[in-house]
Amino acid sequence: MSAKIAVIGSGAAGMTAASTARKEDPGAEIVLFTEDEHIAYSPCVIPWVLEGRTDWDSIVMHDPEYYRRERGIEVRTLTKVSSVDLESCVLRAGGEESSFDRLILATGGQVFIPPIPGTDLPGVHVVRTINDGKAIERGMAAVDDVAIIGAGVIGLEMALAMKESGKGVVVIEMMDQVVPRILDPDLADRLRAYLEERGVRFIMGAPIQSVDGEEGVESVTVSGERIPCGMAVFSTGVRANLELPAQMGLDVGALGAVRVAPTMQPYRKGRLVPNVFVCGDVVQCESAVLPGPTMSQLGSSAVRQGRVAGINAAGGNALHEGVTSPWVSVIGDLQVAGTGISSGLAGWYGIEVVSGVASGLTRARYYPGGKPMTVKVLAERSTGRLVGAQIISGEDATGRINWLSAAILEGVGAKDFLSRYENAYCPPTSMVRDVAFAAVEQLVSGL
Amino acid sequence: MSAKIAVIGSGAAGMTAASTARKEDPGAEIVLFTEDEHIAYSPCVIPWVLEGRTDWDSIVMHDPEYYRRERGIEVRTLTKVSSVDLESCVLRAGGEESSFDRLILATGGQVFIPPIPGTDLPGVHVVRTINDGKAIERGMAAVDDVAIIGAGVIGLEMALAMKESGKGVVVIEMMDQVVPRILDPDLADRLRAYLEERGVRFIMGAPIQSVDGEEGVESVTVSGERIPCGMAVFSTGVRANLELPAQMGLDVGALGAVRVAPTMQPYRKGRLVPNVFVCGDVVQCESAVLPGPTMSQLGSSAVRQGRVAGINAAGGNALHEGVTSPWVSVIGDLQVAGTGISSGLAGWYGIEVVSGVASGLTRARYYPGGKPMTVKVLAERSTGRLVGAQIISGEDATGRINWLSAAILEGVGAKDFLSRYENAYCPPTSMVRDVAFAAVEQLVSGL
Repeated sequence: MSAKIAVIGSGAAGMTAASTARKEDPGAEIVLFTEDEHIAYSPCVIPWVLEGRTDWDSIVMHDPEYYRRERGIEVRTLTKVSSVDLESCVLRAGGEESSFDRLILATGGQVFIPPIPGTDLPGVHVVRTINDGKAIERGMAAVDDVAIIGAGVIGLEMALAMKESGKGVVVIEMMDQVVPRILDPDLADRLRAYLEERGVRFIMGAPIQSVDGEEGVESVTVSGERIPCGMAVFSTGVRANLELPAQMGLDVGALGAVRVAPTMQPYRKGRLVPNVFVCGDVVQCESAVLPGPTMSQLGSSAVRQGRVAGINAAGGNALHEGVTSPWVSVIGDLQVAGTGISSGLAGWYGIEVVSGVASGLTRARYYPGGKPMTVKVLAERSTGRLVGAQIISGEDATGRINWLSAAILEGVGAKDFLSRYENAYCPPTSMVRDVAFAAVEQLVSGL
Repeated sequence: MSAKIAVIGSGAAGMTAASTARKEDPGAEIVLFTEDEHIAYSPCVIPWVLEGRTDWDSIVMHDPEYYRRERGIEVRTLTKVSSVDLESCVLRAGGEESSFDRLILATGGQVFIPPIPGTDLPGVHVVRTINDGKAIERGMAAVDDVAIIGAGVIGLEMALAMKESGKGVVVIEMMDQVVPRILDPDLADRLRAYLEERGVRFIMGAPIQSVDGEEGVESVTVSGERIPCGMAVFSTGVRANLELPAQMGLDVGALGAVRVAPTMQPYRKGRLVPNVFVCGDVVQCESAVLPGPTMSQLGSSAVRQGRVAGINAAGGNALHEGVTSPWVSVIGDLQVAGTGISSGLAGWYGIEVVSGVASGLTRARYYPGGKPMTVKVLAERSTGRLVGAQIISGEDATGRINWLSAAILEGVGAKDFLSRYENAYCPPTSMVRDVAFAAVEQLVSGL
């Protein structure tokens, strides 16, 4: 008899896990519970919907009926799972009990709102679900000025979307650079300058102190300055939703997320829980660059993890190995991408790194339309192996960062990269020697 | 005392070797001899000049005076080296003798013209140098119809350039697919169909029998059919220029090019020649995919090899390791790319391969402007390791083929690719799970 698989969560991890489990075991009974109203969409696209590049209906790929009909997956929306009993294999959702043989937990994360006054005022938003996005859209109509709290990639994408929609925009960041932790300061400063040129104001190195107002947001206060605004969007990082994992007694790791084995099985008091699989923003996973755990809260990571959880929950055999977590963001005309660790993270881990930076073009110099491209690479000084890479470019950053991720994943030394790695060339798509090589060459000269 | 380094050839390999030697040894005396009139340009761009996207002046990066002034490299254009005496370390060029301590040989290749009647007629062209390109441009004015002989990437790029310039174009290919050897038939047929839709006629599986005419080209004959045309462009593949290597007694390998060690040093009667370095289209190199030699006659390969030759000739220490030879070509709205071996080459080497093909988009499904992308991957059946990849895509093929090249270079198994490799994601630049993974997944299901 095939298993009954319960899935909790309808983000990229949960939906991928459910669909993959179905492919792996055509006979399994699969039920998915979600608090969300909409399923099968990418929250990453919300800034572009607000900018008007696409619309809410287009970004939802499928509805619950599609999953029922086409994939034999029962999806219960607006249904919160309140508890899971691992002994009896029964969960409680929407007031009813439901048994399972195997459980996939993909409860995701939520935006961390700092404990300051005023964050419960109307006009305070996060960017997480379609309904969050629609609330922002409704609020925008009556608002001239928006404060974005947090200058990570989502904050910057939102800042530009708001600016493009005609709003005054101020971005408030606690750290002294944009995209802290994953981008180096030199590249981050160029990104900030680009947004400043487009009229976005930045207040750096200053934590927000309060959101102010009576009936709704009227201002935010930073470093004693009151900044008038009708909306405050918090993009202050995502923390794992630990309510259910805690109730289930699952072990939480040093980074504040559920510890999992490469099979995506969690631990309880140090012991693997055999019939549960956890994936997505709620887990911490192994780094491919450093010994130890890392967070990989990316849509692409959720899909990778969901696939492994789904295969294993359906009785298959897949592993999720150490990650470099390549990411890319599009900010106006710029593509920004990174992989592995940044200089800042390396410092935090006590790893001395050597870096190389080079600038060039995305096309041959003499071919029209080439965009500037800057590549930065980092290697561990003691071993020379590549540990990080970052790109700011007018085009084609995505494939290139995947490429550099592969080298980092394989533990390739910077010198080896020069003698072994190759790039494809055609005048309209690349320089004859890709800018990445010039960056690595500069790095090697400093080893 | 620093060495006197002589360089023969001003293509990508020779120019890179000279410039790299200069960086490695600021005191070296460097003299470069070339039969060409122009230096420091990429012949790859010629089709786009003919199409009017850029012009002859723009594609020449530097003149000899620049090299003399800025890099201390003496460049003697229009100067053929007629002989090299390796015993006395003296070469004869333009009627004069010149001594050297170390020699970099980058004599390149030339287009193979099949031994048929009429190839010496005015109106018969190749696409190799700027002067070749200018001759085509001059000839085009008076010509309505052009025959392209050979449907490799240069032939196809030329075919579209001619079509865009208003000419009638017929492409004649001996094999039964376009881009033979490096592209699989299924992808090749799509590329041909794309060009046929744009009005390019193809005659496949038929070797050209003659070029016909009195004062100039009037037609070409294929399978007994006379095809009227005023110009015949041969893009029939490049053979190594072996005149000087033969005169020097260098060993020529099984593929008809100079055998070199990973230092780019050639052999003479099986013994390494210590003070000579050979690079570019004139050499064969080691494959990273198969045990044994391969040809890597790409501009990017010439630059990689030239760098190693230049470093070593200047007393440094660099190696040129096995190649996957990633390539990319832009044909109208399509980017076509490949790396490693094709199914055809695998068959030729007696390697049984399993393939996977998947199609998707270059952006998230719901983000506007995404272009179709098809990825094909090949793995060796006996081991499961990836040995080849090919892409047809509307954008961003270059970084992605570099990425897949890295996996092939590292000998990654198809299953390992699924569990270890990651892709960056942003709705405007990628699907959340890149199409490459779907292709590898399909491959794995057939292993």
